[in-house]
Amino acid sequence: MSVFLGIDWGGTYIKAGLVNSQGEIIRSMVYTSADLRKKKVFIKKLKSLVKELSTFKIKGVGIGAPGIINRDKGFIYYLPNIPGWKNFPLGSVLKKELKIPVFIDNDANIFALAESHYGAASGLSRAIFLTLGTGLGGAVISEGEVLKAEVSALELGHVPISLEKRLCGCGGQGCVETFVGSKYLLARYRKLKDNMTETKNIKDIFDRALRGEKQALLVWEEFSFALGMFLAGMINIFNPQVIIFGGGVSGAFRIFKPKVWQVIKKQAMWPQVKGLKLVKAKVKEAGLIGAALLAAEGIKSK
Amino acid sequence: MSVFLGIDWGGTYIKAGLVNSQGEIIRSMVYTSADLRKKKVFIKKLKSLVKELSTFKIKGVGIGAPGIINRDKGFIYYLPNIPGWKNFPLGSVLKKELKIPVFIDNDANIFALAESHYGAASGLSRAIFLTLGTGLGGAVISEGEVLKAEVSALELGHVPISLEKRLCGCGGQGCVETFVGSKYLLARYRKLKDNMTETKNIKDIFDRALRGEKQALLVWEEFSFALGMFLAGMINIFNPQVIIFGGGVSGAFRIFKPKVWQVIKKQAMWPQVKGLKLVKAKVKEAGLIGAALLAAEGIKSK
Repeated sequence: MSVFLGIDWGGTYIKAGLVNSQGEIIRSMVYTSADLRKKKVFIKKLKSLVKELSTFKIKGVGIGAPGIINRDKGFIYYLPNIPGWKNFPLGSVLKKELKIPVFIDNDANIFALAESHYGAASGLSRAIFLTLGTGLGGAVISEGEVLKAEVSALELGHVPISLEKRLCGCGGQGCVETFVGSKYLLARYRKLKDNMTETKNIKDIFDRALRGEKQALLVWEEFSFALGMFLAGMINIFNPQVIIFGGGVSGAFRIFKPKVWQVIKKQAMWPQVKGLKLVKAKVKEAGLIGAALLAAEGIKSK
Repeated sequence: MSVFLGIDWGGTYIKAGLVNSQGEIIRSMVYTSADLRKKKVFIKKLKSLVKELSTFKIKGVGIGAPGIINRDKGFIYYLPNIPGWKNFPLGSVLKKELKIPVFIDNDANIFALAESHYGAASGLSRAIFLTLGTGLGGAVISEGEVLKAEVSALELGHVPISLEKRLCGCGGQGCVETFVGSKYLLARYRKLKDNMTETKNIKDIFDRALRGEKQALLVWEEFSFALGMFLAGMINIFNPQVIIFGGGVSGAFRIFKPKVWQVIKKQAMWPQVKGLKLVKAKVKEAGLIGAALLAAEGIKSK
């Protein structure tokens, strides 16, 4: 039985999972990201984990990394939320240390890979996958495959949708992320409440909107307009059959979906919208399963 | 010797050309688009042309169409500037009439195909091709191939870059085309001159900018900012090695290139910009040569 080790490398937790070729998780572990922040510690931990699991004959290791990388070389340019990882050839270092083939990709691509095999894009040629969280991540399925470039991430969150001077964490301005990222939504909500609120998370703004609170509804209204306009542009480019919403903020799907649809229908070109569906992500532990799939596909195409 | 018939179907002229497998034009003809506006006349003309050229043993016909089509089916949804062509299965009709394989694609894809074989994207994996004209057309080369969807055009001109209510011909608002299309540039220039100008073409605004006229310079300044912001988004998505500028407005390349570069460098993420070049389109008669390539490739992959 072929078994692959998937690593879901998030800002808060790092999950590791042994996945078989049916996409089933055989064993999984969770680490606190802060504990593995240093490169040496991260690599040492992976090495000991592989040793620990040596009875399983792991065929390949797949890693979904939260940042800007060169997937062909397994080279990390930088990880926006994890300092100290600038310009590091993680792939070649790990390959040497683990003596197993290692494949690295951007986390959004990994999620999309899982959804395209076992989830909402299963059997489809074209899909757009979004991770709605602190920021906005994205991936595109084209002709049944995750769309690839040299720099692995299709940085959908950093497509400008406004010429206004709204500064973005990427150094640019007007990026869609500054309209839909949760940290911007929270700031907007606090401003609408004249800073007279204790709200610290998106779930709370969601609940308040469900209860009909004016300011909370306005936050989702603005969010939906911006997201809809952005998606109309992506639809006009990629002509997807489905758009899949993952990430924490997608918990508010039923609040924002109707308005996003309305904006898309008004803004996008009709032949591109024909047959389109908007759905929530379906695969549980997509980060682990997708990372294992990355390794499995990488070995197959070698 | 394999010979293909390429058709470059523009709003003003329709060009036809016999092209050999080295990409050389053996014979070419030009028709006035207005004369072939009706479907029956268009088809009849093509039929008589193929008959006229019957000594050449044409292996396939490729057509670059100015509109929204389904390339797999050769089905025309609509041609924005040519009324009467809504929902028409041109591919299957022509195949029956001509008894030669027929392939249809969006004109921007055709230009990109020619540039990727014989021009500015030759040998490269990733490129963005823009046709700057009345509107903004676009195509993307990914992994050395023209990126495909079911609806053939990647409607890059209809990606919103502003949430302002700037109405676009597509029915949407804020599309990049409303900032860079020549008809919008001309309208903007006339407004800046309080309608006290006879200027009817872009070349004139270009010449006036070269002479240092304030309003003409402002038009190109605004054009460059909008185009740069739009391209930064496309660069963050596609990580191209080259961006190729074709179409009439690209005549002003040396006026807008420096400012567009400046905006891109400020706005796009640096790993995505590394190694990028901005160049003018290189292939002469790319519409004919690309259409012939479409036919040649279509037959090969059959």
